[in-house]
Amino acid sequence: MPPPARLLVDGMAAGALSPLDRGLAYGDGLFETIRLVGAAAPLWPRHMQRLRESCVRLRLPMPDEALLAREAAAVSSGLADAVVRITLTRGVGERGYAMPASPQPTRIVAAFPAPAPYSGEGVRLRLCRLRLAEQPLLAGMKHLNRLEQVLARAEWDDPSIADGVLLDAAGRVVCTTMANLFAVIGGRLVTPSLERCGVAGVARAQVLATRDAEVRDLALGELAHASELFLSSSVRGIVPVRSMAETVYVPGPVTRDLQSHWRGLGFPTEHI
Amino acid sequence: MPPPARLLVDGMAAGALSPLDRGLAYGDGLFETIRLVGAAAPLWPRHMQRLRESCVRLRLPMPDEALLAREAAAVSSGLADAVVRITLTRGVGERGYAMPASPQPTRIVAAFPAPAPYSGEGVRLRLCRLRLAEQPLLAGMKHLNRLEQVLARAEWDDPSIADGVLLDAAGRVVCTTMANLFAVIGGRLVTPSLERCGVAGVARAQVLATRDAEVRDLALGELAHASELFLSSSVRGIVPVRSMAETVYVPGPVTRDLQSHWRGLGFPTEHI
Repeated sequence: MPPPARLLVDGMAAGALSPLDRGLAYGDGLFETIRLVGAAAPLWPRHMQRLRESCVRLRLPMPDEALLAREAAAVSSGLADAVVRITLTRGVGERGYAMPASPQPTRIVAAFPAPAPYSGEGVRLRLCRLRLAEQPLLAGMKHLNRLEQVLARAEWDDPSIADGVLLDAAGRVVCTTMANLFAVIGGRLVTPSLERCGVAGVARAQVLATRDAEVRDLALGELAHASELFLSSSVRGIVPVRSMAETVYVPGPVTRDLQSHWRGLGFPTEHI
Repeated sequence: MPPPARLLVDGMAAGALSPLDRGLAYGDGLFETIRLVGAAAPLWPRHMQRLRESCVRLRLPMPDEALLAREAAAVSSGLADAVVRITLTRGVGERGYAMPASPQPTRIVAAFPAPAPYSGEGVRLRLCRLRLAEQPLLAGMKHLNRLEQVLARAEWDDPSIADGVLLDAAGRVVCTTMANLFAVIGGRLVTPSLERCGVAGVARAQVLATRDAEVRDLALGELAHASELFLSSSVRGIVPVRSMAETVYVPGPVTRDLQSHWRGLGFPTEHI
């Protein structure tokens, strides 16, 4: 029996993408990166909610959610710990930025093995030089225009540094290249507002829905006074931060409590 | 004899793109849109120069220019007036923003019929509501992250409006959704600085190399006092503007002189 197809394009195995797809031409589309545990995807409804809301903002037709679920199950079949990426584009269009009157979106569903868990007592972060541009019309969405993240991630190649903190042009903390950031400051759980830039992560939404947290502008200097710092990521879960640049942190009760919540959702224990 | 292939992917006709290409996943790449007149591409060296410089900025290997020229000729063969789009991506990579250590770039060369010339005494422009985000690390390049242009172009569907003027967050004039903008103000030719956002067009570079023009910040209010306003575009050439929102313009001597220069380069006469 052949192994299951790990990639479907509009439902077809071994499907390829038209070089005229607007997803390539303009980054005209969205994606979701979904952690599976066996056949379960504990945060699936939140992924679908973000995709639905972003489709409205980008005027893309939302695909059928049951179809996406079937395709995600098909591509990840047999993988114990998979990450499924769903990419949705505005499909093939004529040359030019104008949206086609009747778009035929392209749907790509692909499975990858989940990354190995982080080891040690929390991850090391650096501060990126790149400052995120402020574009309220795109802020929050996981769209396909990700050159800023590519350039920011290229700032370091030390494998002991897990991620980089990104500021906006005004010097406010926004997120990291691949996760959202939470800090405990003065006993309060705080996460940056994402009205101007940054991706509103699904794991962040889960934290905000179940914990009392402040969403507000966060100055870089405040991080030095945080008693706890952690990342939230749909792929990695709740990840304690051991250090950001020169500041050292110790995973505390808020972080540990959320890690426990994550295990309760069905995710495996991260060993940090 | 079959018609010539209008599309080559890494030199192969009927080539398709891997759905795992980073050009799709992150918009991690560049493009050039090149107007041909018969077999000639009068601004070819400027396109290659911009592509070369942008490759350095994005750490992409620059393809062989002679190879690109051969492929552009092949896909446009037999078309009297073609537009060739060259797309260059960082190729297939593992999941994640980190650049592959040894990227295998993807090269797509495609030909399209040139658009019909504009008719009438210059084009009508509108003012877009979307404000361009300021990202100096991406400014000037014709990269694949073009969701801002897609959203701005979706602001209107009146076919009598040819293009929309884009401002940055501070209200400075930057460009239009698909061209650069020049104004004659107090007898001086002026075009906006593109250090913070916008695409530094190849036609703009040709104007700047052959005319005495000021490159500076340009306030929206200044456009009301311009004696001439025109667009520069590698596809469209020098396009007089008849109106921008409520302000009416008449094509003047600077515009006409540059249109004449364009004909001297070998481009056909635009009938406006």
